[in-house]
Amino acid sequence: MEEQVELVGRAFVDHYYHLFDKDRASLSSLYQPTSMLTFEGQRVVGAHAIAEKLSQLPFDQCQHLISTVDSQPSSAAGIVVLVSGSLRLPGEEHLLRFSQMFHLVPSPGGSFFVQNDMFRLNYG
Amino acid sequence: MEEQVELVGRAFVDHYYHLFDKDRASLSSLYQPTSMLTFEGQRVVGAHAIAEKLSQLPFDQCQHLISTVDSQPSSAAGIVVLVSGSLRLPGEEHLLRFSQMFHLVPSPGGSFFVQNDMFRLNYG
Repeated sequence: MEEQVELVGRAFVDHYYHLFDKDRASLSSLYQPTSMLTFEGQRVVGAHAIAEKLSQLPFDQCQHLISTVDSQPSSAAGIVVLVSGSLRLPGEEHLLRFSQMFHLVPSPGGSFFVQNDMFRLNYG
Repeated sequence: MEEQVELVGRAFVDHYYHLFDKDRASLSSLYQPTSMLTFEGQRVVGAHAIAEKLSQLPFDQCQHLISTVDSQPSSAAGIVVLVSGSLRLPGEEHLLRFSQMFHLVPSPGGSFFVQNDMFRLNYG
């Protein structure tokens, strides 16, 4: 059980940042109408608004480098995931450290969607 | 509702780190037998084991400096909280950046307990 949760969390994280870096618009498929994103303190609700927010970030290309992924089973058969890593932006010499947490909740189809998503840059 | 969640999350965070820095042993009261802590990748389960883990950290005194607190309602009437901040250890010149997430779940008595807790130092 614990190992399964770790595997699902890691697979989700790999998938999420791959989409973010290669095909950001497709991230909307991971959210539902009830999903919440808090990005640098700004909260948006719903897959549509979240996709819009992510598409309007002030950089087109980026690369996420993952340092750590921790996962635990949540109540309600979900999984909570805490990620730490670095973000490489085009033309920027320094990497930006970030933290992000996801609460993944089972969807009727047997996979997971993102119910909660909170992202913060870690200024040194 | 959203504002209430933010207030509860912030109040919990203030309380948690106050206890951690002033009376670490009393943190056990915030956990239950089902609670999980993943501390720098090591997972322990249950209030007793968590209190033991926290009491055995390789520093007696510390000071948590909070940078950001984000909170969202989770499914199951809970609250997910993402904290970023710095840790000051005695005799250390540099602050250590950290990230921590909590999943707070309602307890029968009307307050919240910590169901999920994940902590990571953010090495630069």
